[in-house]
Amino acid sequence: MPFVHGVTARFYEVDRAGILFFGRVFEMCHAAYEELLAAAGCDIDRLLALEVGMPLVHAEADFKRPIRLNDRLAVAVEVARASERSVTFAFTLRGAGGADDVRATAKHVHAFVGLRDFSAAAMPEPLDAGLRRLGLIP
Amino acid sequence: MPFVHGVTARFYEVDRAGILFFGRVFEMCHAAYEELLAAAGCDIDRLLALEVGMPLVHAEADFKRPIRLNDRLAVAVEVARASERSVTFAFTLRGAGGADDVRATAKHVHAFVGLRDFSAAAMPEPLDAGLRRLGLIP
Amino acid sequence: MPFVHGVTARFYEVDRAGILFFGRVFEMCHAAYEELLAAAGCDIDRLLALEVGMPLVHAEADFKRPIRLNDRLAVAVEVARASERSVTFAFTLRGAGGADDVRATAKHVHAFVGLRDFSAAAMPEPLDAGLRRLGLIP
Amino acid sequence: MPFVHGVTARFYEVDRAGILFFGRVFEMCHAAYEELLAAAGCDIDRLLALEVGMPLVHAEADFKRPIRLNDRLAVAVEVARASERSVTFAFTLRGAGGADDVRATAKHVHAFVGLRDFSAAAMPEPLDAGLRRLGLIP
Repeated sequence: MPFVHGVTARFYEVDRAGILFFGRVFEMCHAAYEELLAAAGCDIDRLLALEVGMPLVHAEADFKRPIRLNDRLAVAVEVARASERSVTFAFTLRGAGGADDVRATAKHVHAFVGLRDFSAAAMPEPLDAGLRRLGLIP
Repeated sequence: MPFVHGVTARFYEVDRAGILFFGRVFEMCHAAYEELLAAAGCDIDRLLALEVGMPLVHAEADFKRPIRLNDRLAVAVEVARASERSVTFAFTLRGAGGADDVRATAKHVHAFVGLRDFSAAAMPEPLDAGLRRLGLIP
Repeated sequence: MPFVHGVTARFYEVDRAGILFFGRVFEMCHAAYEELLAAAGCDIDRLLALEVGMPLVHAEADFKRPIRLNDRLAVAVEVARASERSVTFAFTLRGAGGADDVRATAKHVHAFVGLRDFSAAAMPEPLDAGLRRLGLIP
Repeated sequence: MPFVHGVTARFYEVDRAGILFFGRVFEMCHAAYEELLAAAGCDIDRLLALEVGMPLVHAEADFKRPIRLNDRLAVAVEVARASERSVTFAFTLRGAGGADDVRATAKHVHAFVGLRDFSAAAMPEPLDAGLRRLGLIP
């Protein structure tokens, strides 16, 4: 079961054609990721207290069907891959039409780094535990 | 003579009607303010090194004529008021039509605070000197 | 009783000091206004169908206390003034601390214009009726 | 020779760690693309007049080194692929350190569609001619 967060396409996010500017999809995914971190008991403040950063090293998205002004979207987040030094989150944005109404998909690859020297680090234990508790890591 | 910085209205800043979303005007003004700080030899990095913050306490704008996609704008900045504890910058955004082609005006009121305890502070000396050198404070 | 809409301060909205960039307050207010229009049965699509636009002619905000990453905010909207040709919405953003925890206040003045020739227009009847139904106009 | 457009990392684009929020990279690339369209004599207004749209169908980016507040960046644009129905632009963002100072790379895949029915279309002739004139298509 993925983690799901709801968002709405706002006036200041749509372009002249009335369609969400593609860059806003990455923000919607990031909002879902922030809610996921909070649900996992390991939000960005806690990560900073642990002296761990999670910089994005890669992001990509496929835009399948237009997202329009006022569309209510469900952003589903899954852990596509968890390795020694990074984690990949996969996002699916669906409209009100349900499971088949996929508007966009995206992937964010985060590296883990120690904030003191930006050296590679492992996934912090509280995040690992939180993702397991949410069923996102088996 | 005000300080002038050029900006262009981008696709991701205009709304469905093809007109710049009003919130972007505040960003354009902030970009001009950042260039002004740099020209004054006192950019945000230097302010932080001086342990001074300049939080916005008030902002306002009047939107006179539409700003459209691709419009080249000149953002003029003046010091409307410099007091013990705050500074007010006044902005005028003009289009390619020249002096009379005013699209929007705005004001930003910044307080000066010490970053240690957020107590009120005076304008940092290097900023004061830079604004005088640029002729923005008499 | 004002209309209230909840928002959360996101990572991509806070600045280097961990404080919400002031321009995002105007977006949060606009999101609340969009939800208000929907609740009033007169969203932007319907306005466009009526060939009425509501351009912002003035916006202002006072920033009282910092809004930080992850802060959950309640944005309350009231009609401060409804005249022949314009409407002023007043916004109050409060944090989790309740009624006294005011972080920012804002005002947006919208003019009504016919979309054909941008001439001044009256408040469209469905919006007037919706705002009365919600108790925002007496 | 790629097409090059200069941008600066602004205060409202950097995050709490003082590093550009990754989504802003896509906006910087889009700004360079808009300048490229203008230089090719085929900006978005002209495309609309031709009843052609260029929706993004895929976007991706790799973030190599941090982009910080006030960094001046050169965004280089090349045509990575031009096919019957789509065009792929490749972007390289470099800092003040020159050719080796690559901060991020990105790709945007645009489809061509007729605006009447959103059916697949070929690259509009004026865009093709403009990109050849600029040396971006052989």
